[in-house]
Parts: sequence; structure tokens; C-alpha cells
Amino acid sequence: MTTLKIIKIGGEIVDNEAVLSKFLTNYAALEGPKILVHGGGKLATKLAETLKIPVTMLEGRRITDQDTLEVATMVYAGKINKGIVAQLQKEKCNAMGLSGADANVITSEKRPVTKIDYGFVGDIIKVNHAFIKLLLDHELAPVFCAITHDAYGQLLNTNADTIASELAIALSSNFNTELFYCFGKQGVLKDMNDEGSVINSIDTNSYALLKEGGIISEGMIPKLDNCFNAVANGVQQVHIGKPEMLFKDHQLYTTITK
Amino acid sequence: MTTLKIIKIGGEIVDNEAVLSKFLTNYAALEGPKILVHGGGKLATKLAETLKIPVTMLEGRRITDQDTLEVATMVYAGKINKGIVAQLQKEKCNAMGLSGADANVITSEKRPVTKIDYGFVGDIIKVNHAFIKLLLDHELAPVFCAITHDAYGQLLNTNADTIASELAIALSSNFNTELFYCFGKQGVLKDMNDEGSVINSIDTNSYALLKEGGIISEGMIPKLDNCFNAVANGVQQVHIGKPEMLFKDHQLYTTITK
Repeated sequence: MTTLKIIKIGGEIVDNEAVLSKFLTNYAALEGPKILVHGGGKLATKLAETLKIPVTMLEGRRITDQDTLEVATMVYAGKINKGIVAQLQKEKCNAMGLSGADANVITSEKRPVTKIDYGFVGDIIKVNHAFIKLLLDHELAPVFCAITHDAYGQLLNTNADTIASELAIALSSNFNTELFYCFGKQGVLKDMNDEGSVINSIDTNSYALLKEGGIISEGMIPKLDNCFNAVANGVQQVHIGKPEMLFKDHQLYTTITK
Repeated sequence: MTTLKIIKIGGEIVDNEAVLSKFLTNYAALEGPKILVHGGGKLATKLAETLKIPVTMLEGRRITDQDTLEVATMVYAGKINKGIVAQLQKEKCNAMGLSGADANVITSEKRPVTKIDYGFVGDIIKVNHAFIKLLLDHELAPVFCAITHDAYGQLLNTNADTIASELAIALSSNFNTELFYCFGKQGVLKDMNDEGSVINSIDTNSYALLKEGGIISEGMIPKLDNCFNAVANGVQQVHIGKPEMLFKDHQLYTTITK
């Protein structure tokens, strides 16, 4: 099977114009089928502040009310997504921006209200991999923003890490899928303050131990859960690190295995 | 050849939630291949005001500086486009939102600076009709916003009427194209204050006479120029009127012929 790279970039890259630009130049040159998923970074928070929309955080998650969803849609699907697509086109990469609503590629359901009502936040229930494969077969490079829909007319804010892993899982029936989470650190660190303390490889057993030992920070757990979900469901390779892991040899990063 | 309907909706429809919603329900039910092009309406102006971005108008045209372009991209490609796509998906119409940058579907060039520098405004130079045909062949319903790109990394604000006519022209090699401009009036009126004074048909000769006689208002001229450009370049039918002309028999509207 052909190898498909699915690459997620977070706020550390999206928020910094020079870093993003350099990343996109390198990304455009990557050979073979590829998908980019981008988070929103601080731009949405900044716009919400300017518009005096209060930001509610609960257990580290942003609560998405109607106004916040509108801001997210404008920033993620508009400004960031189209900016990335235009720059990739300049680099002769035939990028195509997508939200989950477009061609019904990603359907979510509004997260059920339990103790917490997260608002307009979506948990993915279906990926239309046949359509994504059609785009890839025509040498298009899909670029996903973190907005999906419920197929009943409601847009939903959706975690970009989860979008990346669900895309990788869904497309692993068509491709040998490799998932890369790019962020600001070299990988999962044993010591948050030491960039040299990258853990080269984590499997299910060592993950449990690292969590028990309090070595993995709270913030990394949802990301790693996505990684383990991916390797448990057909994704061939999952890596976490700086974008350089994609473009240069001998880079340090963390690999997730079963 | 198969008939393709290309329908442009303006601010009178986009700005009114109830009117837009009713339109989209009817649009979703239209049979055969179809393309929707939407203008931006007053939402971008409103957001620019809230963000205290000064709006510069010159000869009835908005000058698009960097900040204004960002607002336009957020509102047109983000909020409005994804809102329309999500609602069409609800109605079981497999809509797909597009800016000109996506899959390089519409390339423009920044309008040359003469007496006036319009800023980041694009004049269309190329439509990738093969890719649009691919989408239509897969029963997708493309939804275009009024943002294109120059293929050198720059997004450009582009007149939605012109996008609609250029799409219709480019696709007339593949389809029997019918172009519909939907706005708030029954058609081109002899008397602006009399909705009953619709001119049923305008051809090149009568257009010249109507302009000479000052019967056609300044604001209608760019729209009608787009219409005549379309009929002169392979588009089969061009109509101007309220959206009802698409969905109900015996409606009044204006037809443009060579």
C-alpha cells in the first residue's frame, strides 16, 4: 500500500508567521500523498478578546458558546485555513482547505452534557474516507481545520489532534498511514525543562508507568491517548516532535507503539 | 449536454437569516448539477466596524487593505461559507465550500494600480474547470465565496458577480450553463420604485439605449456588464431577479440575451 502522511501542527507553529512559512515550504516539498491538520493557536482567543466575548475555560478546555464558535469558524476555517492553502499553492502544492462540513468529510456529535456542558464541541463519529481518497488520488493535499459538523446544520469545534488521529485511522484501510504530531518540543520529555530528555519510544505498558509516576504532564495525556488510539486501530506509525523530524535526518522525537 | 445552474446570491439574501435559510432549503431541492456563489453582505462591514478597521470607499467600491482582507476572509470563507455548507448538508445537498485558492480553482491578479489602488482586489484570470467538473461529476455542490488567490500566496477579494459569470463561462465547454443573479428585486426595473416595472428581456442594443436614457442605475451596470460578458462567451441563459424565479413558475424576472 502507498504511504500516506498525516501531519498535525499546533499553535506553536500556526501562531508564528515565520515558523509557519518555513514549515509550509518544507511541507510542500514532501513527496507522496499527505494531509495537513492545523489547530487554531492563540488567534481565536485574541479575536474573541478584541470582540469582548468572554472566554470560559473548564478543566483546561475552552467552552464553546455560539459567539466563540463563530469566532473559531472565522479564524480556523477562514483566516488560518485559507492563508495556509494560499501559501501552499505558491509552493506548487495543490492544497485544498476543508472543514468537516465540506463534502460531509467529518461528522461529529455534540459532546453530551454530563457534569460539564462544553457547548458546541464535537466528538467525531464518521470520516468520509472515500472522498478524501478521491482528492488524494487527484494529487490534492487536503488541509483540515478544527471545525466539523453534525450533519444537522450545526458546526462544531473539534480537537485538531483527534481529527488527525481519526483521519489516520479511517484512511488506514486505503493507505499505510503515518501520523505526525508537530509541536514546540522535541518529543515527550522525561523532564519538562530538559529538551534532551526525549523519550524515544513509548508503548502501552510504559505509558501506564509514565502516567503512574507523574512523569507525563496532564496536558500531554489527551494527545497521547489519541496516539495510542491510532496505533490500536490500524495506523502504522505515530511520532511526536518538532516539525524537523519530518524534513531532516537524525532528529530526536518520540515514537508511539502498541 | 447536461444543464448546469450557477446561482449567485447577494447581501439581501445572505444578511437575512430567515431568507437565507428558506433559500437554502429550496436550493438543496434543485435537481441536476449546480454551483452557488455568495457575496458577503453587511457582515464584513459590521465586523470591520467592531474591530475599528476604517472602511474606505472609492467610487462605490470598498478599498481592501490588509486588515479588510483578513476580515473578508474570515467572514466570507469562514462564517458565511461554512454556515451555508452546514445547512445544505442538513438538507442532504452534498455541498463543498471553496475559495479560489482551494485546489487552485480560481486564479486572479491583483488589480493594477492606476488612478486608484483598490488594494487586495483580484481580477479573475483563470478558472480550473476540470476540477470543478470532477466535483460535479461526483454529485457535489460547490459553494464559492468571494475570495480568490494570485497563485503567489496572496488571497484577493473578488467580486462575487464576476466569480459567477467567469465560472459559467469556463464551464460552458462542459455544460449547458444557466446563470442566475438573485437579489432583492424582481429584475431590472424601468422605475426603481415600481416592482411591477420589470424589463422582461434586455439585449445588447436595448442595453445601450437603456444606459443612454439613464434608465439603468449606476449600481446595476457592473452586474449587467457581467451578464453580457457571459452571454457573449458561451453561457446559454442569464437571468436576474428574486430567488423565487428558480423555484416557482410564472415569476417575473429579467432575461439577458445577446
